[in-house]
Amino acid sequence: MEKMAEKAASNNLNFRPHFKTHQSLEVGRWFRDFRVTDITVSSVSMAHYFAQDNWKNITIAFPFNTLESSLLTDFNDSVGLNLCVESVQALKNLEKELKRPANAFIKTDIGYHRTGVDPSDQNTIEQLIEHCAKNPLLNWAGFLGHAGHSYACRGTQEILEVHQSGTAVLATLKDRYNGAYTSYGDTPTCSVANSFTGIDELRPGNFVYYDLSQYHIGSCSLEQIAVCMACPVVTTHPERNQAVLYGGGVHFSKDRSTGNDGAPCLGLMVKLTDHAWEPMNDAAQLVSLSQEHGILQGDATQALKPGDVVGVLPVHSCMAVDCMKDKGWTRIVG
Amino acid sequence: MEKMAEKAASNNLNFRPHFKTHQSLEVGRWFRDFRVTDITVSSVSMAHYFAQDNWKNITIAFPFNTLESSLLTDFNDSVGLNLCVESVQALKNLEKELKRPANAFIKTDIGYHRTGVDPSDQNTIEQLIEHCAKNPLLNWAGFLGHAGHSYACRGTQEILEVHQSGTAVLATLKDRYNGAYTSYGDTPTCSVANSFTGIDELRPGNFVYYDLSQYHIGSCSLEQIAVCMACPVVTTHPERNQAVLYGGGVHFSKDRSTGNDGAPCLGLMVKLTDHAWEPMNDAAQLVSLSQEHGILQGDATQALKPGDVVGVLPVHSCMAVDCMKDKGWTRIVG
Repeated sequence: MEKMAEKAASNNLNFRPHFKTHQSLEVGRWFRDFRVTDITVSSVSMAHYFAQDNWKNITIAFPFNTLESSLLTDFNDSVGLNLCVESVQALKNLEKELKRPANAFIKTDIGYHRTGVDPSDQNTIEQLIEHCAKNPLLNWAGFLGHAGHSYACRGTQEILEVHQSGTAVLATLKDRYNGAYTSYGDTPTCSVANSFTGIDELRPGNFVYYDLSQYHIGSCSLEQIAVCMACPVVTTHPERNQAVLYGGGVHFSKDRSTGNDGAPCLGLMVKLTDHAWEPMNDAAQLVSLSQEHGILQGDATQALKPGDVVGVLPVHSCMAVDCMKDKGWTRIVG
Repeated sequence: MEKMAEKAASNNLNFRPHFKTHQSLEVGRWFRDFRVTDITVSSVSMAHYFAQDNWKNITIAFPFNTLESSLLTDFNDSVGLNLCVESVQALKNLEKELKRPANAFIKTDIGYHRTGVDPSDQNTIEQLIEHCAKNPLLNWAGFLGHAGHSYACRGTQEILEVHQSGTAVLATLKDRYNGAYTSYGDTPTCSVANSFTGIDELRPGNFVYYDLSQYHIGSCSLEQIAVCMACPVVTTHPERNQAVLYGGGVHFSKDRSTGNDGAPCLGLMVKLTDHAWEPMNDAAQLVSLSQEHGILQGDATQALKPGDVVGVLPVHSCMAVDCMKDKGWTRIVG
């Protein structure tokens, strides 16, 4: 938190961390020590969750689901809401239902090609801006981009290439539209880059815990991973060099990453200590997940027996935390 | 439900459906119309959930996590609990903590090689039986096997080969151990097979809804799939033949299947009707899932616009239902 907050401050950027990774009121409060007042979430229900803890400036960084427009009136008037739009049709749908003020960011495709207006589509961009200008409840807030294609990178150089091209798109739009506000953020580029020309705001989220994917991408060191699953060993199969964990797809999700050896990886075994974890030599890997079972494979499983508890670093902390939070099984230690 | 209950009855088998697929008290109650009294679950917490609705005979079909032994005393004395053990170490751990009667199945590897005692390991099997015989709280219940490798099959013939070899393992153990009770079940083999020589009990679960995986395996027709996700369209990208849904990995899980065309499949677009769904011509497929986004690709997306709601058949109903149930977003229609 401190590192990212300082990076934002030293570059004169607003720091608006994405809270979808931790989804925790307690962890959210820690950000207040770093003078964070503005946050990002990925759904209306997540915005409600954090609004109850007195967060007053919330960006819902998802193409707004206009079927949820009526839910916006449930927020206290003192909460500033920033929505994302990327089509005239969606903006019209929103306008029909909107009963309270809101800011609208134009979600812009800065190279990931998942969502967002094509930045060269000036016609759509200008229609969106005009619609907002005519509606007293809507205020056009600027451009918002997510360089999600950084997740396919391996190593600093590839990440920085994504960063250069992604920020350049937003910088061009800022120039073209009278210095419009630009919001940017994904954990790999924000972790690795040190210069943010043309950007006004950073929105990374995953950095709060990191995970094995981020380690494989090159965003963090292994030691920086701050989330770990405690999994009971339920049986061992030394003849297959395996241990079976109570820890499956309903706990980890089924996300996978590609390790530095090119093999698919679902999780990494570590040693649990009283308040944290330590890396192991010859660590075993999670090689298979079914609904409740996890299969750990590797020499380190030879020392395990039923009733032991092992640590497993998850591949994707956002997904694992979402699973475990819904079950009420997350815990803060340290 | 009716079909599977009749198949069990006509083969003189106890029908003990696995409730991990629906995890719903209401759906569970429907089974009572088919004289079901015995159920299967995959965790102690799931056993608690169904015990509150007066289910009195519950098998926890998972290598028992002995760290949860003390939780067994929370069950009313009238609830019969059947646990699975597969190692002497785990059984000793359980015995140390056990304060109430329980039945113990020997979890047996019938070819899946995920968990279970090697059926040729008579030494372990006999030690487990002897331990149970000496402990007044433990009753040895027989052998329990799961032919989970049927999930890798494509078509009836492959499924029946898994079925033959899997049931043969349990039949051999029944012969060797004085007619011991044998519990068997996975949705593909139980859906396709009609003869269950050497088996006393069926435990399939997924059949209650089926899903795209089961359709690809050959367990069911597309029309038999009884679970469907209603997903709002948040934006469209006709230039990429894509629509973006509010429906991501936190809703579907990230399980994938291989379609009949050999391509990975994360979900299939269908038309929602008032109380069900209908197949579409040129249906689009879910080709990518991130935390909250689903990317639908195919010609059928050309007709979509933001604010529409489409149906998507999930790849793995158990996982999707687990995600949606935890969020309180499942709904029974029809």
